[in-house]
Amino acid sequence: VTSSHERGGLPANRVEALSDGVFAIAMTVIVLNIQIPEGGTESELVAKLGALAPKFFAYVTSFLMLGVLWIGHHFQFHYIRRTDRNLLWFNLLFLLAITFLPFATGVLANYNRSPSAVLVYGGNLMVAGTSLLGHWIYATTGHRLVSPDVSREAIASIRNRVAGGLVVYGSATLAGLFDTRVSLAMFVLMPILYLIPTRVDRAVAKR
Amino acid sequence: VTSSHERGGLPANRVEALSDGVFAIAMTVIVLNIQIPEGGTESELVAKLGALAPKFFAYVTSFLMLGVLWIGHHFQFHYIRRTDRNLLWFNLLFLLAITFLPFATGVLANYNRSPSAVLVYGGNLMVAGTSLLGHWIYATTGHRLVSPDVSREAIASIRNRVAGGLVVYGSATLAGLFDTRVSLAMFVLMPILYLIPTRVDRAVAKR
Amino acid sequence: VTSSHERGGLPANRVEALSDGVFAIAMTVIVLNIQIPEGGTESELVAKLGALAPKFFAYVTSFLMLGVLWIGHHFQFHYIRRTDRNLLWFNLLFLLAITFLPFATGVLANYNRSPSAVLVYGGNLMVAGTSLLGHWIYATTGHRLVSPDVSREAIASIRNRVAGGLVVYGSATLAGLFDTRVSLAMFVLMPILYLIPTRVDRAVAKR
Amino acid sequence: VTSSHERGGLPANRVEALSDGVFAIAMTVIVLNIQIPEGGTESELVAKLGALAPKFFAYVTSFLMLGVLWIGHHFQFHYIRRTDRNLLWFNLLFLLAITFLPFATGVLANYNRSPSAVLVYGGNLMVAGTSLLGHWIYATTGHRLVSPDVSREAIASIRNRVAGGLVVYGSATLAGLFDTRVSLAMFVLMPILYLIPTRVDRAVAKR
Repeated sequence: VTSSHERGGLPANRVEALSDGVFAIAMTVIVLNIQIPEGGTESELVAKLGALAPKFFAYVTSFLMLGVLWIGHHFQFHYIRRTDRNLLWFNLLFLLAITFLPFATGVLANYNRSPSAVLVYGGNLMVAGTSLLGHWIYATTGHRLVSPDVSREAIASIRNRVAGGLVVYGSATLAGLFDTRVSLAMFVLMPILYLIPTRVDRAVAKR
Repeated sequence: VTSSHERGGLPANRVEALSDGVFAIAMTVIVLNIQIPEGGTESELVAKLGALAPKFFAYVTSFLMLGVLWIGHHFQFHYIRRTDRNLLWFNLLFLLAITFLPFATGVLANYNRSPSAVLVYGGNLMVAGTSLLGHWIYATTGHRLVSPDVSREAIASIRNRVAGGLVVYGSATLAGLFDTRVSLAMFVLMPILYLIPTRVDRAVAKR
Repeated sequence: VTSSHERGGLPANRVEALSDGVFAIAMTVIVLNIQIPEGGTESELVAKLGALAPKFFAYVTSFLMLGVLWIGHHFQFHYIRRTDRNLLWFNLLFLLAITFLPFATGVLANYNRSPSAVLVYGGNLMVAGTSLLGHWIYATTGHRLVSPDVSREAIASIRNRVAGGLVVYGSATLAGLFDTRVSLAMFVLMPILYLIPTRVDRAVAKR
Repeated sequence: VTSSHERGGLPANRVEALSDGVFAIAMTVIVLNIQIPEGGTESELVAKLGALAPKFFAYVTSFLMLGVLWIGHHFQFHYIRRTDRNLLWFNLLFLLAITFLPFATGVLANYNRSPSAVLVYGGNLMVAGTSLLGHWIYATTGHRLVSPDVSREAIASIRNRVAGGLVVYGSATLAGLFDTRVSLAMFVLMPILYLIPTRVDRAVAKR
């Protein structure tokens, strides 16, 4: 790994460390919103666990969503080697959205038929997606903070993947005005779609 | 350390960072489920601490279990130098199980004579073990993401250790259908067994 | 990156890791103080979210404040390559203030018209700023823990930026004795001012 | 930095990362045990903050104690370059004690005149100190996991510092049987004593 010092700018490793920390905590904290049943008989436990089903569902969905966003962030920093103050703030705005997701998840779990809850959750994801997109566009415009040998194809491929996510978040939020079940389905399907490797993956594998 | 960039693929350091963060939080958060006694006389404190005994027991057990799983993960990444999207998702599935363990621990502490609680806890560990096993098999099949000079012996040794854990988790869960005390004993003994070094340790020491 | 071992002293990477961890947790934990509405009708949700407005406001403000402090810490460690026991304690005092911010934020959110709440919040920031300033002065006096080729200009520029923040924190706290709204406005405006790059940024970019 | 791979054994960086994460969380989580006052008049806020004084006191004390232990851990890993399964378990036992400290701190804050609370807190610190001492003795006996050029003086100096802490923890716990105020004073004074640099610091600076 070439030291960022040789090229100027702040090294990227601390932004990565802060971001990994925030993701790790957000992923773990969603579960803390599921209250542990307080004791009782076998059948009471089964009933209580059953009643928590919407919370389990929301937790797994949000965990996978955080996974998609973390992978997107990870791919970007595979190429971004230097940072500056502006990029740090794009990243902080992104992390602001990540820290809010446990709250939005709790709201969606408790009000899963409410358009406002879908708006809170989808809006949260849209802030995350928009700042991640801005982060990439800022870093790559004129190869500002990436190595000059990063291909236009790789840049476009990562950009399109984030932008595609934004379209899903926006559509799911809009769908919530009509039927929140459509929104929930879209939130669940989205990470599954993002399992599929694309040109980004081939570019990274070659590099 | 040879840079992963020279061989293509995403570097492994961020997966390690995210995973270490999730483990660190899960380990610390189990204790948060033990409510701090709210004040009173000396003898009240002693009584309250005594009443918390099952929770202390569950906390220490789960901490050690997390220790076993973290060491297993650590050994794998001693050899895995590159990652790809598929491996990241194997890892995320593993972390999903890790983040859930504080909840499962709380359930087991509050219902330690209930087969369903053992099923929640053992099932959680089985998801963790299965994804860790899949993670290793995916990474090492055809030396996909490990260096070509990693011996078949080292690969088999790590695989068997994870598979052995899975057998323990499964047996303990099954035993819970008959007597949950047998399950608890197995959950406690398992980390003690895993203190013993095996061929993996010798392979790592030589490398 | 030149190893700190070659120059003596403890390497800086672990102080960075501990600090990034504390920041990541503090950033995520502020949100946990906002209680998730417990279920009900659509209009109840809207009303409850509206009632939480001061808490959302305090959360975003404190997150951005943590962002400013983290960036300040990050810039310092761009130059600090070695640490010693004294520097570790300056850093720990700084982190003590960071860990307290979620509490101070909660107090300010619940008592936003109270001078005492402003004093708690502003005093907390003043401890953070003072220890960060002491941290830098200690590290750079006689180039104690920075490379000899770090220019006096870069040293002064980082020092003035931290000192400027301290002046804002102090003024905002004082203003709270007369009108807490002035304090709140200053706390919100401060991160926006710190978006603007200065000589520090140019020095770092060149390096 | 010489790669640990060249000498065999697991690299130390992940143990450091896990440990820094656990410390960061433990440091931040102690504050979460202090309940944020729920709103009211200016004088109510002052009264409530006053009533929280023992909790603030316990939080600052435990934070500094965690600082002492983290610095001790940090100094050890300045020399330890390789790990093995045994060392990982010494470290995990140490971390088990660290994760428990927020609970023990809460108990001490709520029962500061109770010998049992002092026993919980002091006992917790003794487990931490004992495992940290065992960790160092295991790593350095026959220069097992440290470089052969580490001087006997440096080894003894770090060992004595940890052992000295153990003596303080033990004495403070015993003193609690007679007067818990003596114990509290010793817990508070201990970190202040450990601010003073000794031979360890000179050894590290030279290296």
